[in-house]
Amino acid sequence: MAPTRPRLFATPDEAQTAFYEAFERANLAAMMAVWAESDDIVCVHPQGPRLVGFEAVRESWMQIFANGAALRVRATEERRFDAQSVAVRAVVEQVAPVGENAPVSAICATNIYELTPNGWRMVVHHASPLADPAPAAEEPAPQGHTLH
Amino acid sequence: MAPTRPRLFATPDEAQTAFYEAFERANLAAMMAVWAESDDIVCVHPQGPRLVGFEAVRESWMQIFANGAALRVRATEERRFDAQSVAVRAVVEQVAPVGENAPVSAICATNIYELTPNGWRMVVHHASPLADPAPAAEEPAPQGHTLH
Repeated sequence: MAPTRPRLFATPDEAQTAFYEAFERANLAAMMAVWAESDDIVCVHPQGPRLVGFEAVRESWMQIFANGAALRVRATEERRFDAQSVAVRAVVEQVAPVGENAPVSAICATNIYELTPNGWRMVVHHASPLADPAPAAEEPAPQGHTLH
Repeated sequence: MAPTRPRLFATPDEAQTAFYEAFERANLAAMMAVWAESDDIVCVHPQGPRLVGFEAVRESWMQIFANGAALRVRATEERRFDAQSVAVRAVVEQVAPVGENAPVSAICATNIYELTPNGWRMVVHHASPLADPAPAAEEPAPQGHTLH
Protein backbone atom coordinates (compact mmCIF):
# COMPACT_ATOMS: atom_id res chain seq x y z
CA MET A 1 0.00 0.00 0.00
CA ALA A 2 1.49 3.31 -1.03
CA PRO A 3 1.47 5.96 1.66
CA THR A 4 -0.79 8.74 0.55
CA ARG A 5 0.21 11.26 3.19
CA PRO A 6 3.67 12.59 3.96
CA ARG A 7 5.42 10.60 6.65
CA LEU A 8 7.52 12.22 9.27
CA PHE A 9 11.20 11.39 9.28
CA ALA A 10 12.90 11.88 12.63
CA THR A 11 16.42 12.01 11.22
CA PRO A 12 18.14 12.76 7.91
CA ASP A 13 19.15 9.11 7.72
CA GLU A 14 15.54 7.96 8.00
CA ALA A 15 14.69 10.30 5.14
CA GLN A 16 17.55 8.98 3.07
CA THR A 17 16.59 5.36 3.72
CA ALA A 18 13.05 6.19 2.63
CA PHE A 19 14.38 7.92 -0.47
CA TYR A 20 16.30 4.89 -1.68
CA GLU A 21 13.51 2.50 -0.72
CA ALA A 22 11.02 4.54 -2.72
CA PHE A 23 13.49 4.65 -5.60
CA GLU A 24 13.93 0.87 -5.60
CA ARG A 25 10.21 0.22 -5.30
CA ALA A 26 9.41 2.85 -7.96
CA ASN A 27 6.79 4.16 -5.56
CA LEU A 28 5.92 7.75 -6.48
CA ALA A 29 3.88 8.53 -3.38
CA ALA A 30 6.62 7.24 -1.11
CA MET A 31 9.23 9.15 -3.11
CA MET A 32 7.37 12.44 -2.92
CA ALA A 33 6.74 11.95 0.80
CA VAL A 34 10.50 12.28 1.20
CA TRP A 35 10.74 15.63 -0.56
CA ALA A 36 9.96 18.97 1.05
CA GLU A 37 6.79 20.50 -0.35
CA SER A 38 8.51 23.60 -1.62
CA ASP A 39 8.99 25.62 -4.77
CA ASP A 40 12.72 25.72 -4.04
CA ILE A 41 13.69 22.06 -4.01
CA VAL A 42 16.25 21.13 -6.66
CA CYS A 43 16.64 17.78 -8.41
CA VAL A 44 19.19 16.93 -11.09
CA HIS A 45 19.01 13.40 -12.45
CA PRO A 46 22.15 12.08 -14.18
CA GLN A 47 22.62 14.05 -17.41
CA GLY A 48 19.19 15.55 -16.90
CA PRO A 49 18.04 19.14 -16.64
CA ARG A 50 17.87 21.08 -13.39
CA LEU A 51 14.39 20.67 -11.95
CA VAL A 52 13.18 23.23 -9.43
CA GLY A 53 10.01 22.96 -7.37
CA PHE A 54 7.85 20.13 -6.13
CA GLU A 55 5.76 19.67 -9.26
CA ALA A 56 8.71 19.48 -11.66
CA VAL A 57 10.47 17.05 -9.36
CA ARG A 58 7.35 14.89 -8.98
CA GLU A 59 6.84 14.80 -12.74
CA SER A 60 10.41 13.61 -13.27
CA TRP A 61 10.10 10.71 -10.84
CA MET A 62 6.78 9.76 -12.35
CA GLN A 63 8.46 9.46 -15.74
CA ILE A 64 11.44 7.57 -14.34
CA PHE A 65 9.19 5.11 -12.55
CA ALA A 66 6.98 4.70 -15.62
CA ASN A 67 9.93 3.86 -17.83
CA GLY A 68 12.17 1.86 -15.67
CA ALA A 69 12.85 -1.65 -14.67
CA ALA A 70 13.20 -2.22 -10.95
CA LEU A 71 16.59 -1.14 -9.69
CA ARG A 72 18.72 -1.96 -6.72
CA VAL A 73 20.42 1.18 -5.40
CA ARG A 74 23.09 1.07 -2.75
CA ALA A 75 24.54 4.31 -1.34
CA THR A 76 28.25 3.95 -0.58
CA GLU A 77 31.29 6.06 0.30
CA GLU A 78 29.15 8.46 2.26
CA ARG A 79 30.46 11.76 3.51
CA ARG A 80 28.22 13.50 6.05
CA PHE A 81 27.88 17.13 7.06
CA ASP A 82 25.31 17.74 9.77
CA ALA A 83 23.80 20.86 11.26
CA GLN A 84 20.74 21.28 13.43
CA SER A 85 18.40 21.85 10.51
CA VAL A 86 20.34 20.95 7.36
CA ALA A 87 22.14 17.68 6.65
CA VAL A 88 24.26 16.63 3.69
CA ARG A 89 24.90 13.07 2.49
CA ALA A 90 27.39 12.93 -0.37
CA VAL A 91 27.38 9.39 -1.70
CA VAL A 92 28.22 7.12 -4.59
CA GLU A 93 25.14 5.21 -5.73
CA GLN A 94 25.78 1.69 -7.02
CA VAL A 95 22.85 0.98 -9.30
CA ALA A 96 21.94 -2.40 -10.79
CA PRO A 97 18.83 -3.96 -12.26
CA VAL A 98 17.09 -6.21 -9.76
CA GLY A 99 17.65 -9.89 -10.40
CA GLU A 100 20.45 -9.40 -12.87
CA ASN A 101 24.17 -9.68 -12.57
CA ALA A 102 24.59 -6.84 -14.99
CA PRO A 103 27.46 -4.49 -14.32
CA VAL A 104 26.38 -1.78 -11.96
CA SER A 105 26.49 1.82 -12.95
CA ALA A 106 27.87 4.30 -10.46
CA ILE A 107 26.30 7.66 -9.81
CA CYS A 108 27.73 10.49 -7.77
CA ALA A 109 24.96 12.02 -5.67
CA THR A 110 24.72 14.92 -3.28
CA ASN A 111 21.62 14.62 -1.11
CA ILE A 112 20.53 17.46 1.14
CA TYR A 113 17.86 17.26 3.83
CA GLU A 114 16.20 20.04 5.78
CA LEU A 115 14.30 19.86 9.05
CA THR A 116 10.80 21.10 8.25
CA PRO A 117 7.70 21.33 10.45
CA ASN A 118 6.91 17.88 9.00
CA GLY A 119 10.25 16.34 9.87
CA TRP A 120 13.40 15.89 7.80
CA ARG A 121 12.80 16.19 4.08
CA MET A 122 14.96 16.11 0.99
CA VAL A 123 15.53 19.53 -0.58
CA VAL A 124 18.33 18.76 -3.07
CA HIS A 125 19.25 15.63 -5.01
CA HIS A 126 22.09 16.30 -7.44
CA ALA A 127 23.18 13.19 -9.33
CA SER A 128 25.69 12.79 -12.14
CA PRO A 129 27.49 9.84 -13.73
CA LEU A 130 30.60 8.89 -11.78
CA ALA A 131 33.65 9.30 -13.98
CA ASP A 132 36.38 6.72 -13.75
CA PRO A 133 39.21 7.96 -11.54
CA ALA A 134 41.67 6.14 -13.78
CA PRO A 135 42.88 8.04 -16.84
CA ALA A 136 40.61 7.55 -19.79
CA ALA A 137 42.33 6.31 -22.92
CA GLU A 138 41.87 9.53 -24.80
CA GLU A 139 42.54 11.80 -21.90
CA PRO A 140 46.05 11.81 -20.51
CA ALA A 141 45.34 14.08 -17.53
CA PRO A 142 45.73 11.96 -14.41
CA GLN A 143 42.46 13.10 -13.01
CA GLY A 144 40.64 13.73 -16.22
CA HIS A 145 38.65 16.78 -15.25
CA THR A 146 40.26 19.74 -16.91
CA LEU A 147 36.93 21.17 -17.96
CA HIS A 148 34.94 22.98 -15.43
CA MET B 1 49.25 39.17 -4.03
CA ALA B 2 47.98 35.69 -3.40
CA PRO B 3 46.95 35.03 0.15
CA THR B 4 49.17 32.32 1.54
CA ARG B 5 47.22 31.68 4.70
CA PRO B 6 43.60 30.69 5.03
CA ARG B 7 41.31 33.66 5.40
CA LEU B 8 38.36 33.67 7.65
CA PHE B 9 34.96 33.92 6.02
CA ALA B 10 32.27 35.30 8.28
CA THR B 11 29.37 33.99 6.20
CA PRO B 12 28.71 31.27 3.61
CA ASP B 13 28.21 34.00 1.02
CA GLU B 14 31.64 35.47 1.71
CA ALA B 15 33.11 32.01 1.20
CA GLN B 16 31.18 31.57 -2.03
CA THR B 17 32.26 34.95 -3.34
CA ALA B 18 35.86 34.02 -2.57
CA PHE B 19 35.40 30.68 -4.30
CA TYR B 20 34.29 32.22 -7.58
CA GLU B 21 36.87 35.00 -7.37
CA ALA B 22 39.64 32.45 -6.90
CA PHE B 23 38.21 30.43 -9.78
CA GLU B 24 38.16 33.43 -12.11
CA ARG B 25 41.65 34.51 -11.09
CA ALA B 26 42.96 30.93 -11.32
CA ASN B 27 44.55 31.53 -7.92
CA LEU B 28 45.27 28.20 -6.26
CA ALA B 29 46.16 29.59 -2.84
CA ALA B 30 43.00 31.67 -2.74
CA MET B 31 40.96 28.69 -3.93
CA MET B 32 42.29 26.34 -1.30
CA ALA B 33 41.79 28.97 1.40
CA VAL B 34 38.08 28.57 0.71
CA TRP B 35 38.06 24.79 1.27
CA ALA B 36 37.94 23.14 4.68
CA GLU B 37 41.22 21.43 5.49
CA SER B 38 39.66 18.01 5.83
CA ASP B 39 39.97 14.49 4.49
CA ASP B 40 36.22 14.44 3.93
CA ILE B 41 35.69 17.30 1.52
CA VAL B 42 34.18 16.24 -1.81
CA CYS B 43 34.72 17.88 -5.21
CA VAL B 44 33.23 16.73 -8.50
CA HIS B 45 34.18 18.77 -11.55
CA PRO B 46 31.90 18.47 -14.59
CA GLN B 47 32.28 14.97 -16.01
CA GLY B 48 35.20 14.40 -13.67
CA PRO B 49 35.80 11.79 -10.99
CA ARG B 50 34.75 12.17 -7.38
CA LEU B 51 37.64 13.70 -5.47
CA VAL B 52 37.71 13.25 -1.70
CA GLY B 53 40.11 15.00 0.66
CA PHE B 54 42.05 18.23 0.62
CA GLU B 55 45.06 16.99 -1.35
CA ALA B 56 43.03 15.43 -4.17
CA VAL B 57 40.92 18.57 -4.42
CA ARG B 58 43.97 20.84 -4.41
CA GLU B 59 45.64 18.78 -7.14
CA SER B 60 42.55 19.06 -9.35
CA TRP B 61 42.39 22.83 -9.11
CA MET B 62 46.12 23.06 -9.76
CA GLN B 63 45.61 21.18 -13.01
CA ILE B 64 42.56 23.21 -14.00
CA PHE B 65 44.39 26.47 -13.37
CA ALA B 66 47.52 25.25 -15.19
CA ASN B 67 45.55 24.37 -18.31
CA GLY B 68 42.92 26.95 -18.51
CA ALA B 69 42.29 30.30 -20.02
CA ALA B 70 40.84 32.89 -17.69
CA LEU B 71 37.15 32.40 -17.20
CA ARG B 72 34.28 34.54 -16.12
CA VAL B 73 31.95 32.62 -13.83
CA ARG B 74 28.59 33.95 -12.73
CA ALA B 75 26.46 32.01 -10.25
CA THR B 76 22.76 32.38 -11.05
CA GLU B 77 19.38 30.90 -10.14
CA GLU B 78 20.52 30.31 -6.59
CA ARG B 79 18.55 28.23 -4.12
CA ARG B 80 19.69 28.55 -0.51
CA PHE B 81 19.33 26.25 2.47
CA ASP B 82 20.84 27.61 5.67
CA ALA B 83 21.48 26.14 9.07
CA GLN B 84 23.64 27.38 11.90
CA SER B 85 26.71 25.46 10.79
CA VAL B 86 25.94 24.14 7.30
CA ALA B 87 24.82 26.16 4.29
CA VAL B 88 23.85 25.07 0.79
CA ARG B 89 23.99 27.16 -2.38
CA ALA B 90 22.56 25.35 -5.39
CA VAL B 91 23.36 27.43 -8.46
CA VAL B 92 23.71 27.48 -12.21
CA GLU B 93 27.19 28.67 -13.20
CA GLN B 94 27.33 30.68 -16.40
CA VAL B 95 30.90 30.24 -17.62
CA ALA B 96 32.56 32.20 -20.42
CA PRO B 97 36.13 32.94 -21.45
CA VAL B 98 37.23 36.40 -20.34
CA GLY B 99 37.24 38.94 -23.13
CA GLU B 100 35.33 36.80 -25.56
CA ASN B 101 31.77 36.82 -26.67
CA ALA B 102 31.81 33.05 -26.95
CA PRO B 103 28.65 31.28 -26.00
CA VAL B 104 28.67 30.54 -22.31
CA SER B 105 28.51 27.06 -21.01
CA ALA B 106 26.18 26.36 -18.15
CA ILE B 107 27.10 24.20 -15.19
CA CYS B 108 24.81 22.97 -12.46
CA ALA B 109 26.62 23.25 -9.13
CA THR B 110 25.77 22.33 -5.56
CA ASN B 111 28.06 24.16 -3.14
CA ILE B 112 28.09 23.30 0.55
CA TYR B 113 29.78 25.30 3.28
CA GLU B 114 30.45 24.39 6.89
CA LEU B 115 31.23 26.63 9.83
CA THR B 116 34.65 25.55 11.05
CA PRO B 117 36.88 26.98 13.80
CA ASN B 118 38.43 28.99 10.95
CA GLY B 119 35.17 30.38 9.66
CA TRP B 120 32.90 29.20 6.85
CA ARG B 121 34.60 26.86 4.42
CA MET B 122 33.54 24.88 1.39
CA VAL B 123 33.12 21.15 2.03
CA VAL B 124 31.35 20.02 -1.15
CA HIS B 125 31.41 21.32 -4.73
CA HIS B 126 29.42 19.07 -7.06
CA ALA B 127 29.32 20.35 -10.62
CA SER B 128 27.88 18.77 -13.75
CA PRO B 129 27.00 20.02 -17.22
CA LEU B 130 23.56 21.59 -17.32
CA ALA B 131 21.37 19.60 -19.64
CA ASP B 132 19.02 21.39 -21.97
CA PRO B 133 15.57 21.58 -20.45
CA ALA B 134 14.14 20.62 -23.82
CA PRO B 135 13.54 16.89 -24.17
CA ALA B 136 16.61 15.00 -25.25
CA ALA B 137 16.06 12.39 -27.90
CA GLU B 138 16.45 9.45 -25.57
CA GLU B 139 15.18 11.01 -22.39
CA PRO B 140 11.91 12.88 -22.31
CA ALA B 141 12.50 15.76 -19.97
CA PRO B 142 9.74 16.78 -17.63
CA GLN B 143 8.07 20.10 -18.10
CA GLY B 144 7.91 23.06 -15.86
CA HIS B 145 11.40 23.62 -14.59
CA THR B 146 12.46 27.19 -14.29
CA LEU B 147 15.24 27.51 -16.81
CA HIS B 148 15.27 30.52 -19.05
